[in-house]
Amino acid sequence: MIFENYDRIVFAGDSVTDMGSVQPVGEGLFENMGRGFPRIIENLVYAAYPELTLRFTNSGISGNTSKDLLERFERDVINLNPQWVSICIGINDVWRQFDTPAMKDYAVSTEDYEANLRKMIEAAKAVAKGVIITTPYYMEPNKADFMRARMQDYVDICERLASEYGCIFVNFQEMYDKFFAYKHSSLIAWDRVHPNLIGATLMAKEWLSKVGFDYNHTPEC
Amino acid sequence: MIFENYDRIVFAGDSVTDMGSVQPVGEGLFENMGRGFPRIIENLVYAAYPELTLRFTNSGISGNTSKDLLERFERDVINLNPQWVSICIGINDVWRQFDTPAMKDYAVSTEDYEANLRKMIEAAKAVAKGVIITTPYYMEPNKADFMRARMQDYVDICERLASEYGCIFVNFQEMYDKFFAYKHSSLIAWDRVHPNLIGATLMAKEWLSKVGFDYNHTPEC
Amino acid sequence: MIFENYDRIVFAGDSVTDMGSVQPVGEGLFENMGRGFPRIIENLVYAAYPELTLRFTNSGISGNTSKDLLERFERDVINLNPQWVSICIGINDVWRQFDTPAMKDYAVSTEDYEANLRKMIEAAKAVAKGVIITTPYYMEPNKADFMRARMQDYVDICERLASEYGCIFVNFQEMYDKFFAYKHSSLIAWDRVHPNLIGATLMAKEWLSKVGFDYNHTPEC
Amino acid sequence: MIFENYDRIVFAGDSVTDMGSVQPVGEGLFENMGRGFPRIIENLVYAAYPELTLRFTNSGISGNTSKDLLERFERDVINLNPQWVSICIGINDVWRQFDTPAMKDYAVSTEDYEANLRKMIEAAKAVAKGVIITTPYYMEPNKADFMRARMQDYVDICERLASEYGCIFVNFQEMYDKFFAYKHSSLIAWDRVHPNLIGATLMAKEWLSKVGFDYNHTPEC
Amino acid sequence: MIFENYDRIVFAGDSVTDMGSVQPVGEGLFENMGRGFPRIIENLVYAAYPELTLRFTNSGISGNTSKDLLERFERDVINLNPQWVSICIGINDVWRQFDTPAMKDYAVSTEDYEANLRKMIEAAKAVAKGVIITTPYYMEPNKADFMRARMQDYVDICERLASEYGCIFVNFQEMYDKFFAYKHSSLIAWDRVHPNLIGATLMAKEWLSKVGFDYNHTPEC
Amino acid sequence: MIFENYDRIVFAGDSVTDMGSVQPVGEGLFENMGRGFPRIIENLVYAAYPELTLRFTNSGISGNTSKDLLERFERDVINLNPQWVSICIGINDVWRQFDTPAMKDYAVSTEDYEANLRKMIEAAKAVAKGVIITTPYYMEPNKADFMRARMQDYVDICERLASEYGCIFVNFQEMYDKFFAYKHSSLIAWDRVHPNLIGATLMAKEWLSKVGFDYNHTPEC
Amino acid sequence: MIFENYDRIVFAGDSVTDMGSVQPVGEGLFENMGRGFPRIIENLVYAAYPELTLRFTNSGISGNTSKDLLERFERDVINLNPQWVSICIGINDVWRQFDTPAMKDYAVSTEDYEANLRKMIEAAKAVAKGVIITTPYYMEPNKADFMRARMQDYVDICERLASEYGCIFVNFQEMYDKFFAYKHSSLIAWDRVHPNLIGATLMAKEWLSKVGFDYNHTPEC
Amino acid sequence: MIFENYDRIVFAGDSVTDMGSVQPVGEGLFENMGRGFPRIIENLVYAAYPELTLRFTNSGISGNTSKDLLERFERDVINLNPQWVSICIGINDVWRQFDTPAMKDYAVSTEDYEANLRKMIEAAKAVAKGVIITTPYYMEPNKADFMRARMQDYVDICERLASEYGCIFVNFQEMYDKFFAYKHSSLIAWDRVHPNLIGATLMAKEWLSKVGFDYNHTPEC
Repeated sequence: MIFENYDRIVFAGDSVTDMGSVQPVGEGLFENMGRGFPRIIENLVYAAYPELTLRFTNSGISGNTSKDLLERFERDVINLNPQWVSICIGINDVWRQFDTPAMKDYAVSTEDYEANLRKMIEAAKAVAKGVIITTPYYMEPNKADFMRARMQDYVDICERLASEYGCIFVNFQEMYDKFFAYKHSSLIAWDRVHPNLIGATLMAKEWLSKVGFDYNHTPEC
Repeated sequence: MIFENYDRIVFAGDSVTDMGSVQPVGEGLFENMGRGFPRIIENLVYAAYPELTLRFTNSGISGNTSKDLLERFERDVINLNPQWVSICIGINDVWRQFDTPAMKDYAVSTEDYEANLRKMIEAAKAVAKGVIITTPYYMEPNKADFMRARMQDYVDICERLASEYGCIFVNFQEMYDKFFAYKHSSLIAWDRVHPNLIGATLMAKEWLSKVGFDYNHTPEC
Repeated sequence: MIFENYDRIVFAGDSVTDMGSVQPVGEGLFENMGRGFPRIIENLVYAAYPELTLRFTNSGISGNTSKDLLERFERDVINLNPQWVSICIGINDVWRQFDTPAMKDYAVSTEDYEANLRKMIEAAKAVAKGVIITTPYYMEPNKADFMRARMQDYVDICERLASEYGCIFVNFQEMYDKFFAYKHSSLIAWDRVHPNLIGATLMAKEWLSKVGFDYNHTPEC
Repeated sequence: MIFENYDRIVFAGDSVTDMGSVQPVGEGLFENMGRGFPRIIENLVYAAYPELTLRFTNSGISGNTSKDLLERFERDVINLNPQWVSICIGINDVWRQFDTPAMKDYAVSTEDYEANLRKMIEAAKAVAKGVIITTPYYMEPNKADFMRARMQDYVDICERLASEYGCIFVNFQEMYDKFFAYKHSSLIAWDRVHPNLIGATLMAKEWLSKVGFDYNHTPEC
Repeated sequence: MIFENYDRIVFAGDSVTDMGSVQPVGEGLFENMGRGFPRIIENLVYAAYPELTLRFTNSGISGNTSKDLLERFERDVINLNPQWVSICIGINDVWRQFDTPAMKDYAVSTEDYEANLRKMIEAAKAVAKGVIITTPYYMEPNKADFMRARMQDYVDICERLASEYGCIFVNFQEMYDKFFAYKHSSLIAWDRVHPNLIGATLMAKEWLSKVGFDYNHTPEC
Repeated sequence: MIFENYDRIVFAGDSVTDMGSVQPVGEGLFENMGRGFPRIIENLVYAAYPELTLRFTNSGISGNTSKDLLERFERDVINLNPQWVSICIGINDVWRQFDTPAMKDYAVSTEDYEANLRKMIEAAKAVAKGVIITTPYYMEPNKADFMRARMQDYVDICERLASEYGCIFVNFQEMYDKFFAYKHSSLIAWDRVHPNLIGATLMAKEWLSKVGFDYNHTPEC
Repeated sequence: MIFENYDRIVFAGDSVTDMGSVQPVGEGLFENMGRGFPRIIENLVYAAYPELTLRFTNSGISGNTSKDLLERFERDVINLNPQWVSICIGINDVWRQFDTPAMKDYAVSTEDYEANLRKMIEAAKAVAKGVIITTPYYMEPNKADFMRARMQDYVDICERLASEYGCIFVNFQEMYDKFFAYKHSSLIAWDRVHPNLIGATLMAKEWLSKVGFDYNHTPEC
Repeated sequence: MIFENYDRIVFAGDSVTDMGSVQPVGEGLFENMGRGFPRIIENLVYAAYPELTLRFTNSGISGNTSKDLLERFERDVINLNPQWVSICIGINDVWRQFDTPAMKDYAVSTEDYEANLRKMIEAAKAVAKGVIITTPYYMEPNKADFMRARMQDYVDICERLASEYGCIFVNFQEMYDKFFAYKHSSLIAWDRVHPNLIGATLMAKEWLSKVGFDYNHTPEC
């Protein structure tokens, strides 16, 4: 696994990251880390690597667009001195275009999204050992759905910027697309956005597969 | 409009009918009628026909399948001596096949659905002046979606039985299909099932268009 | 209909406008718009004109007199850059004269009411395409009732100023007077002020009848 | 005052009597007696006649019509072995005719009202020293109001039966009619039915004026 | 009665005055006036003098000593421009000497009490037509009880200052002493301080007897 | 100390015993034992005698008179197979005579109290090693107070029956009388009945002084 | 993996199994399955084997001993027609011996534990394809701790019976013993019994390692 | 006993001191003092020494480390002008090293602990008659447990500083070690830190044994 003892990993994002975590930044005891994929990642890492002590921090806030996240990125991510920054943002940038189409200022265009994400990556790279870019997604296998089609533009921006800046890239949209060949999206989420624990586990698995995690790791005595 | 003074119209169904109504049967003051399409219908009828006094009753219960509704049909519909019975059932018959696929007994097959609906229509026709069959639906324009495809089978059964028994037929699925050519489903519902008030208004409009309702009706002095 | 795509319509008022909306200004998802006549208007417009995207905003605050509304008019109405402003104020200006007669400063006299309303109309006209003046009302058919009689003075001021400034005029008091020829006021409200959803629908219908709304509008493909 | 030491006075009625009292029968400590006119009567009697020990019991239940009260009269009034029975019923018999006109079985006609009240008076006379009939009322000075006009029929029945059976008669309707020559009904109640504490005090005063109560009574040492 | 139309009467005090009133100053609708003796006074005055419109204001705050009341007297009493000021303070000055004897700074000595009360009377006289001094009390007929004995010193100060400044004087302690010759204190209060509604009515009666109130007043037509 | 390993001690009584304990019988974890003197006894015994394992059970129920306790004595005391039974009852037998004097059936006379207590003692003696009779009390040093005087009759009955049946006798009334020579009753209870934790500790100390408890006990190794 | 499509796996146990699941039996949507190790197992299985549809059911009830579980085993396990039964019971059998030592009937002896477990295994084997015995545990690495030592007796009984009946055996105690060589027990649980999500993940991993689960399983297309 | 009339004793600490007390400083009525050992001490002192009036103040705040306590020591302890200061701090300094090992800044090292404690002792000695140092503890008899071993270092610092500065020394750790030779730690606390009332009583007894308290003290008349 790419993480070293006492590394701090900060997850920045929206409600998919947040999932009930302490605001604005949660970690440690109780439900401080929330119940989303970052918590599942923490659980699996601690269970499989008892000899390691890693610090996982949840900087997700429900409802955030890339614009909102950028505004608090200094305070809630950079100032925490992370060794690793994982970003999952963009769902609300797109969703607001469809559920409140009259409120144009609630959403974020592709141009602004790319600019926002670029600034966050550059800020994170300046302080951390590495940056992990995870895509936004819509749990919709029909690529012609208005919102699913729009989402692909944001996914593509993530992929392009991850490549440009040498970030680890985790494609949640593609992962979900594959899963829904077997099961209907309502098994994971009724609103096609907020995953239940099976969905959070799917995301954790995908994320862990990109950082060298080994489920069968045994610590040396 | 086909309704006469003091007619009682009973809406039987699931959460789409229920929407917070009093259990098992709600009507009259406060939020007893819930906030779904039956309430919108009542509001529009009272506002446009002040000289009429019609009794609207909500017999919807959240989570009901056609099996559940049939079991309580005598108590919650027939015994109320309605002049008109409107039925909207089947969404949960289908949904449970996809969100809890392992619990096979939670869902209802097409065969059982048809048998259940048939029994309800026959019971209603025996006491009422007329029966209104409204279809279940899934707010999914992609007809290849697993759940949308399955829903069509249930919609078709509704249409066939309505024709066979001479019922008024209201096709909510088709109405939604048309609407989603203009707006994304997330404007109406995040879970593609439970409509917000815009959706309930769409359903009320569709229903009223089949019973001779006139928005510009003026009572004679 | 007089509204064009992406127009913003702001409803300013008291509890009759507010009805549980987000404070001080509500719009968009959830119950942000409240449950009063502005929400019914939004529902009917979206249901009948799916090709349009209009922005409806609720700036009603429970308990406001014209004095209270004027004080926040800049912040809660003008600064929102509306294309249309609809004002419904004055009920509390009158009501406080009767339910708390000893607290003279809680109420607003006709002179002050006219001055307040005039200032709001002028401010609104300076930024919007049009202003809609709706009257306050008391659901009391007996014009000799102390409070109903006083209310008429405020209704008359509305009518006069609407004419003077070329505003669209909606007479809720007259509409209710007509309705109560058929039904008793307790069908709509026990306190003769806060309408239930039937009353809110009556008000929405009256309002829509003045802005060229067509219930049977069909969008062109 | 007509009451003797240790007499028990039972107030039977609807929400106007109940006003938050313990269900179905409340008396003694805490808020058991509710906050309506029976509590005000108890307070004034105990304050003015410290040498007396009278037992006041509240058998009011919110929403009751004369039909509902008759059904529980044996259990909640007669079985308590009262020396005095005070009855205030009929408001809901009338109100339901106007706020839920379609639900005809929710209301009670004048014929049924008279029959119900007659049965209660006869049952009460069989066990008590005296019966006090108080009228239902609607706080509406306009006698042409649909509901106020209907209420008068019920008030008249009370007066007639009180005379026929030799009961003490308390005319709340007339008392309110007089009061509203000075103040508007909204000083006492927004819904013209449920009095605030000023209204409850008015009712207590009227009631006490018929039972020989003296505000300036001084106990002998 | 000594009050004239539109006079404002402000009640300053502790929990006995407050009794759930709005903080720091309550009046008008709902339970704003609390449930203590000022509310009973308001009820009786409005019920007996319908032609008058008096403004009653509750400036009681639970737990206040004379020191606390003096600190907020300008804001909560004088600035309200009252025509009449009624003061009931001192119970907590004494009580804290006995229930928390170690916290000496929680209580107020007789010297300080007199100085505090004097300042309040002088401030009130400067703006009002009249000042009403009501005594603190302890519902304890045994004058040898530690706390009852101490209370008498504070009662005596009230009487002396009322006489010195020509205030109306209401002796609640003496009134309770007389009442408890007939009934035990637990009929009115378990803690011998906070009266139930019978106690509040006793206090209202005593207060009204000093201001020319007539229970049988009839307004001229 | 008179208790042996694994003895069960059951405390029967009213709210003074109960103090928030589980209903009808509480013991063991959490707040099951309530916060009254039985809990303080348990705490002190476990802290001073770590080598002993005694079972303390709280059978107190708030509001009970001796009549109420007798009715449930078989179920809540005898059926638990106690080695020791401690009874503290009678406060409500007396209190109801004074706070609700009109409700004569709420209280219990001295004759009935003696008969009830006698039956409980006889039932307890038939199954237990010993019975502890503790007196009811009123925290009132003035023996001429109506309620304190009446309480003495009940205290005397306790003393007489304890002597007659050879029970351990604990005189809470006398203990409180002595304590109030030093401090005012409001240090312990505002209502002179329900002790705070200082009062509960006083009672536990008095009780323990009669059963051979040694605060400085040291277990042998 | 040993499970076949549509197999039902029932988890019987106490609070460690329950963890907030629906009572008495939970499965499917929402938090019905609770948040303990059975939920983690379900999540991991669904995430790794999307082509499979297994039914997981939580029959854990907080506070249960083996005696309590045996009493409801027919209703909550056998009658559900499971293909697999997983049992985790015994912690409370031991715990009650130490936290409430006086209440001997709250705990369960080793003899009774063995008899209870034997009956459950036999009942489960009669209906299911296989039985999984998981041990109770105490998160205490010090084997000389009173409670940890006693727990070992119960763990040994599990191991012996699993062997005797050919059940799959999962040793949670041993798993935790190994883990606590690296981390202190307070990382997992403050009370050394109720695991947080890291602990539940450890238990799920141990359980899955005995049923042929493969984290890197890929479904064939 | 070493305390004189009107002495103020302030308890500074963490959740073990706090136990629900008012924040940041609690004393006097209601549950202001919390339910921990300071409250038990107050109860026992008032019950045994009725002639004394001592002021006990709870300055414990849940979750505090010695770093947190030092930061508020001026405000919450010194500024209260105590005659005696009792300090119980350090549990969280150690605990955070084990339950959140990755958050190194949440815990306090032995070096910092000693420095913090030293500053607090010096500040307290400058204003008070005496300082009482009580040790932190972990209810773990196994001295090889990771956390119990670390705790001993902090206990030793307490003992050393108490000796160096001439403070009264109370060794809670040693007291608990002895107690757990007889009973298992789960009798007192499931988490081995927060004592139930038996544990709080044990701590109060230990504390009182160092200040000359006599359980059998009798005040002279």
